[in-house]
Amino acid sequence: MKLEPVADLPEIRPGDDLAELIADRASLEAGDVLTVASTVVSKAEGRMVDLESYPVSGRAQELADRIESVAGERKDPRFAQAVLAESTELLIEAPFLLTETRFGHICVNAGIDRSNVPDHDLLLLPKKPAESAERIRTGLTERGLEDVSVIVTDTCGRPFRHGQRGVALGWAGMPASRDWRGEPDRDGRELGVTVQSVVDELASAANLVTGEGADGTPAVVVRDWAFGDLEGSDELFRAVEDDLVRQALREWDWGDDS
Amino acid sequence: MKLEPVADLPEIRPGDDLAELIADRASLEAGDVLTVASTVVSKAEGRMVDLESYPVSGRAQELADRIESVAGERKDPRFAQAVLAESTELLIEAPFLLTETRFGHICVNAGIDRSNVPDHDLLLLPKKPAESAERIRTGLTERGLEDVSVIVTDTCGRPFRHGQRGVALGWAGMPASRDWRGEPDRDGRELGVTVQSVVDELASAANLVTGEGADGTPAVVVRDWAFGDLEGSDELFRAVEDDLVRQALREWDWGDDS
Repeated sequence: MKLEPVADLPEIRPGDDLAELIADRASLEAGDVLTVASTVVSKAEGRMVDLESYPVSGRAQELADRIESVAGERKDPRFAQAVLAESTELLIEAPFLLTETRFGHICVNAGIDRSNVPDHDLLLLPKKPAESAERIRTGLTERGLEDVSVIVTDTCGRPFRHGQRGVALGWAGMPASRDWRGEPDRDGRELGVTVQSVVDELASAANLVTGEGADGTPAVVVRDWAFGDLEGSDELFRAVEDDLVRQALREWDWGDDS
Repeated sequence: MKLEPVADLPEIRPGDDLAELIADRASLEAGDVLTVASTVVSKAEGRMVDLESYPVSGRAQELADRIESVAGERKDPRFAQAVLAESTELLIEAPFLLTETRFGHICVNAGIDRSNVPDHDLLLLPKKPAESAERIRTGLTERGLEDVSVIVTDTCGRPFRHGQRGVALGWAGMPASRDWRGEPDRDGRELGVTVQSVVDELASAANLVTGEGADGTPAVVVRDWAFGDLEGSDELFRAVEDDLVRQALREWDWGDDS
C-alpha cells in the first residue's frame, strides 16, 4: 500500500470543482482511494459562516454560561448556537460540547472549525459528506478517471485514548467496513474478530501524510490497496440502541440541576 | 508513505525471537516503523492459557450469569475470571465485559483472544506491550538494524462508531503522538487542532495490509514516513479524571440492583 499527498492544491473557494482541481494534479488510477479533508470540501461547498448569523437562544446562552463556570473560559454563546444548529443531540454539555451532527457523526463542537477559515469566523462540516464524496467520485469519472473510491475525512478525539486520529465522514465507491465474521483463522477455527472499519483506517493512514497547519495537504491518494472479496457494510455511525456509552451519557447525572 | 507486510513468518511459539524472525525476512532501514500484532508478541511471550487455570470467584460467576441474562448467551465463568485477572477496572458488565487492562488499555474482554490459539483455550495480551516493543527494537539494533521504531498493535471497537480499527498497545523508538498546538494555519492563525495520535494511526494503516484470518500477516514495515520536528508525548491512555465517558460509565445506574 502506498500513500501520496496531492501536491499544490490552491486555497479552495466556494464553487471550486474539487474533482477537477485534484484530477489536474494527481495521477489517479482505477482502484485508487482518494481521501479529501472535510475542510476543503466545506470550503468548496461554501460552508463558511460568521458568528453574527447565529442569534443566541436561551439554550445556547445557558450552555455558554455552563461551560464558562465549569471550564473557566469564556465561550461565545453564538458559537454554542452554531453547534446546536448543526446537531441533533447533545451528548456532553460541559466542559465541552459533544454532539451528534445531522449526518450521524459524533464529535466535539459538531466539527465546526475556527482555524483555517479565511475571511470568516467559522467553517461548518459538509452538510452531507456521503453526497460530497459521491459528487467528487462522479466528477472524476466524468474526467475519465473511473473506479476511484473517495473518502471525506476529518480528525477527531475519542474516549479512553488521548489524541485525535483521522476518521471518515462520508465515502463513495466502496463500503465503510469489511466483515471477517465466519472467516477461518490459521487453525481453521472461526475468527473472533468481526467488522473492520476500513474507511476510518484509510482516513487515519491518510492523516499521517497530510499534516496540519500551513503546509498541510488536504488530499491523499492511496494505491495498491484493495477491499477484497469480503462482505461489506455501510453502517459506520452507531444508533443509540447499539451504543452503551451513549446510553450512559444520556442518563448520567451531571452533578447539578440542569 | 509505503506499507509492506513482512512475508512468510512462521507460526510463532513461546520463546521465539521475533526480532530475529522479522530481521531475517524484512529489509528494514533506519527510520522505518515496524508494527507487530499483539497476537504474535503474546505467543512469543508464552501468554497462552487454558480456561481450567481460572478457578471461578463469586464475582466471575455473577458476571457470567448477568451476561447470560442480558445477552441471552452463555458465558463461561472461567472466561469472566480470566478477564477479571487481566483487568484493573470493569467499565461495562453486560452484555459484554469492557475493562481497563493492567497496562491502561480499555477494550472488550481485556483483549483476550479465543481464536488463533493453537493447543490452548485463550491468548492473553502481552503483559507490558511497551516493554515488548522495546525488546523487539533492541533485538533489531543488536542485528545492526538501528533506528527502527516498533509498535505492538491490536484491533478494537469503540463507542459511537461501528467496526474495529487498529490501535497501538505499546511503542518504542518514537513518541505516541505529536503536538500541533501553537502551529500556524495557512492564514497564520493558531491551529485549533491539537494532539495527533500517530501510533494509533500507524496501527490502523498497518491493519489495512495485515488482514485477519488464515492469510493474515502479523508484521508490517512502514517506510518513508517521519515523525518530524513537532513535540511528542507518550500519553496514550486517558486517566479517569480526564475522561468524561469513563466518569459517566462509573456512575451509570445499570438499571438493576447490582
